[in-house]
Amino acid sequence: MSHNLLKGKKGIIFGALDEKSIAWKTALRCVAEGAEIVLTNAPVAVRMGEINALAQQCNAPVIPADVTNMDDLDNLFTKTKAHFGGGVDFILHSIGMSVNVRKGNDYTNLNYDYMHKSVDISGMSLHRVLQTAMKHDAINEWGSVVALTFIAAHLAFPNYNEMADIKAMLESITRSFGYQYGMKKKVRVNTISQSPTMTTAGQGIGGFDGFVAYSEKMSPLGNASADQCAEFAVSLFSDYTRMVTMQNLFHDGGFSCTGVTEAVIAQMSK
Amino acid sequence: MSHNLLKGKKGIIFGALDEKSIAWKTALRCVAEGAEIVLTNAPVAVRMGEINALAQQCNAPVIPADVTNMDDLDNLFTKTKAHFGGGVDFILHSIGMSVNVRKGNDYTNLNYDYMHKSVDISGMSLHRVLQTAMKHDAINEWGSVVALTFIAAHLAFPNYNEMADIKAMLESITRSFGYQYGMKKKVRVNTISQSPTMTTAGQGIGGFDGFVAYSEKMSPLGNASADQCAEFAVSLFSDYTRMVTMQNLFHDGGFSCTGVTEAVIAQMSK
Amino acid sequence: MSHNLLKGKKGIIFGALDEKSIAWKTALRCVAEGAEIVLTNAPVAVRMGEINALAQQCNAPVIPADVTNMDDLDNLFTKTKAHFGGGVDFILHSIGMSVNVRKGNDYTNLNYDYMHKSVDISGMSLHRVLQTAMKHDAINEWGSVVALTFIAAHLAFPNYNEMADIKAMLESITRSFGYQYGMKKKVRVNTISQSPTMTTAGQGIGGFDGFVAYSEKMSPLGNASADQCAEFAVSLFSDYTRMVTMQNLFHDGGFSCTGVTEAVIAQMSK
Amino acid sequence: MSHNLLKGKKGIIFGALDEKSIAWKTALRCVAEGAEIVLTNAPVAVRMGEINALAQQCNAPVIPADVTNMDDLDNLFTKTKAHFGGGVDFILHSIGMSVNVRKGNDYTNLNYDYMHKSVDISGMSLHRVLQTAMKHDAINEWGSVVALTFIAAHLAFPNYNEMADIKAMLESITRSFGYQYGMKKKVRVNTISQSPTMTTAGQGIGGFDGFVAYSEKMSPLGNASADQCAEFAVSLFSDYTRMVTMQNLFHDGGFSCTGVTEAVIAQMSK
Repeated sequence: MSHNLLKGKKGIIFGALDEKSIAWKTALRCVAEGAEIVLTNAPVAVRMGEINALAQQCNAPVIPADVTNMDDLDNLFTKTKAHFGGGVDFILHSIGMSVNVRKGNDYTNLNYDYMHKSVDISGMSLHRVLQTAMKHDAINEWGSVVALTFIAAHLAFPNYNEMADIKAMLESITRSFGYQYGMKKKVRVNTISQSPTMTTAGQGIGGFDGFVAYSEKMSPLGNASADQCAEFAVSLFSDYTRMVTMQNLFHDGGFSCTGVTEAVIAQMSK
Repeated sequence: MSHNLLKGKKGIIFGALDEKSIAWKTALRCVAEGAEIVLTNAPVAVRMGEINALAQQCNAPVIPADVTNMDDLDNLFTKTKAHFGGGVDFILHSIGMSVNVRKGNDYTNLNYDYMHKSVDISGMSLHRVLQTAMKHDAINEWGSVVALTFIAAHLAFPNYNEMADIKAMLESITRSFGYQYGMKKKVRVNTISQSPTMTTAGQGIGGFDGFVAYSEKMSPLGNASADQCAEFAVSLFSDYTRMVTMQNLFHDGGFSCTGVTEAVIAQMSK
Repeated sequence: MSHNLLKGKKGIIFGALDEKSIAWKTALRCVAEGAEIVLTNAPVAVRMGEINALAQQCNAPVIPADVTNMDDLDNLFTKTKAHFGGGVDFILHSIGMSVNVRKGNDYTNLNYDYMHKSVDISGMSLHRVLQTAMKHDAINEWGSVVALTFIAAHLAFPNYNEMADIKAMLESITRSFGYQYGMKKKVRVNTISQSPTMTTAGQGIGGFDGFVAYSEKMSPLGNASADQCAEFAVSLFSDYTRMVTMQNLFHDGGFSCTGVTEAVIAQMSK
Repeated sequence: MSHNLLKGKKGIIFGALDEKSIAWKTALRCVAEGAEIVLTNAPVAVRMGEINALAQQCNAPVIPADVTNMDDLDNLFTKTKAHFGGGVDFILHSIGMSVNVRKGNDYTNLNYDYMHKSVDISGMSLHRVLQTAMKHDAINEWGSVVALTFIAAHLAFPNYNEMADIKAMLESITRSFGYQYGMKKKVRVNTISQSPTMTTAGQGIGGFDGFVAYSEKMSPLGNASADQCAEFAVSLFSDYTRMVTMQNLFHDGGFSCTGVTEAVIAQMSK
């Protein structure tokens, strides 16, 4: 499927780690829909090298940037504007990492230095990106910014740990900065709240398999895949959704609006 | 426990069918907290007679009223004002009945004449009560109206059938009329979204046992009981909550904010 | 702009009254994107004749149907299936009428017979359409149903009157039936919560001009137009949004997530 | 008004700066309702000395604690348990400070070192308090924790700056930790989302006067006062609300459920 939905549009994709990444699939989809893109990720991730294969497929430059480092972000937007000869039309923020999860700390036993790092990488990074973009006037009018989130921002999911609270902040930044950028330059900012997805990041969460199975049974259409998420992101980057902003959009097969299913009730009575 | 929280207050309790009813328990609780009350229910329910035992315990008159009949509601408020020598301070609306559920019609096979009846009894009835009360100027300043609802107004619960859609309307009437009555006379209107409760009404819903068990496992504090609901209603009738209005308040042990629990995940992997 | 987004798809558009209608613009947009459509509206509206001009432009048959009449809906789906030689891929429900508003009754002075009619036309009609479609197996797998709603379903807007409560019911039907149709046939059902729009229907609401101006000042991107709504509906009918279901999607320039703007604060201090 | 609602209960009040503080008024109200309390605040605030007047009125010890310092929190809970000879029944978290607001940085020009400090003081502090309390087993069964928040966590309010995003995190911590503490010891955790209140903290926000006036006009019951907030907090500490947990409770005269009022529309057309 391709409808040239993004023909003539230019964008930046953050967070394509490997083939399973939503960002990876979104990059491919955007290019298939006619867009030109710049790829970026943390320097350490870029050095691992997989992103170069994607870059080749997408005919896209890779500009490494640590999203917690303002110099890196300045450099990213400077080089991107030079590359495109102007601003971009869309940005995908697909960045999330919990230091406490990596270190095996339970939610009732957090290390707060780690939490600060998690907050910075996974939450404040969206603000850093938008603030830098605004300073560089790097997003064109009616541009579209999408960040990925998870429903744990709204409901307790014990294994999602500190990331729940950070995603709640991320969604709020979407509203707060969406207001500012909408007022200033008609740029829209939204989050996609995606089904649990078997990416390399997702797999880091304890009990993720069991949760994916539960979510599948609790979603009338089943879990949304990474490929479908890429398609949905394309629709949000397109001109068909220009007046949608500051929203959190559930892309989850109906999970978020389902209280219980007959399959789950049946399982409970076993 | 009694703290004379409602000393000097007067109220009307709709919907006390039998000892299991939330309305029944709320009536007792209000009287224990120092209130005087009037009891009302549909004429057919009143004729069944159980409410008279409650009336005796509460030293309260019973004034039958079909909530879909404006003459009955006029009569109720006229007699209540005469009984108390003035207006009331609180009203409990605990009324709900699905004709399609009673007739065994699935949600994808509704009879719309039945649905109109269900809408009238369970949803529009709150509007009828409030409109009549306003015409009679029957609620005192800073009065408090509470209606009971269920989270199916927000999330799909297959067995809850048409009542989900009607409860959504009920919660909207709470906001819409809460605005009007707040502006006009500082009267507040709220809903309590209660855990599934083993009342006679609840038992009419198919698969209710399985659902109660699921809800218990999905609520960090367990399901809220009818007695606890009565206590919560008292707090909303009291002067401690004067500025809370137009809200839907979840009284459910945390169910509404829980995405999944470890107990449910464990059960799913069996 | 056309990307052949709906190439090969077939649909039914309810509610195209005149050129200002969102349904009218959506019909044109769907055809421009490659879809074939059937037009329908209430017999009385069809007799007024404007829809025939649209039908000619769209090369579409007009099949009148009163959405509160099950025979009419049976006839609509029978004829539509015959016309297309099979089921449809999308349906737009753009139907709303408040009898109490037409009769000039305030929200605190409703006529309940009128309200029943309003509920039936504007709320239950979505259920009637979906139930009939399911019986006829008239929606193809991964089909998409969209109904139009307004934020008054969530917040009090005094002039919106009884329609607020009915839209709340409509949004609930979207979830409840979206669950059923998703489970049964992967059909998705969503609502678009659109900015106040100067349609013939919108103009019937008292003080609508003042409210449109307020909404414009409270929306970072301004109010969404009917044309933009048509584009957004197309994205929801397309295959880019397959896993979005049971959702209420705000298409409102950010109004729903804006607490206050500097323009409104400035106006308040005049 | 006093009903001995908290007779026999013990609690900790964070954040009583001066007479205008909600925490100050809540402390007085709790004592009036029969509770014994411990007061705490940041060492620098304690040194300013006003809290000692409150301590005398409340017959309460003052135990200074920087909420971003785990040793201080350890000390607070150790000394509190020693003072009471056991755990507490309630905690009020009324702590918020935006370094960027103090420094005059706009939301699109944030300093991220400052933001980390604001996040720690205003958001993560609730987690630090709860994690420490749990380690000390310092909250009794059915204990109640309340934190104060503002609706900017849900909607954009331009002048509220970074605090919007931090309050969103705070509300998420309420859910995430509320789950854990509910499961472990039946402790409930909720936030009160209070009307804008003319405290010393509130006054630090630019354009606060204009906003308070707007909010007053947008709330059917008017803005909730600090005294009324104290009363509502008491109801949440009492045994009447035992099954309410993980919730954000709007205490705002209906502001959160009001789309627009006639007064605002009238003002807009001037």
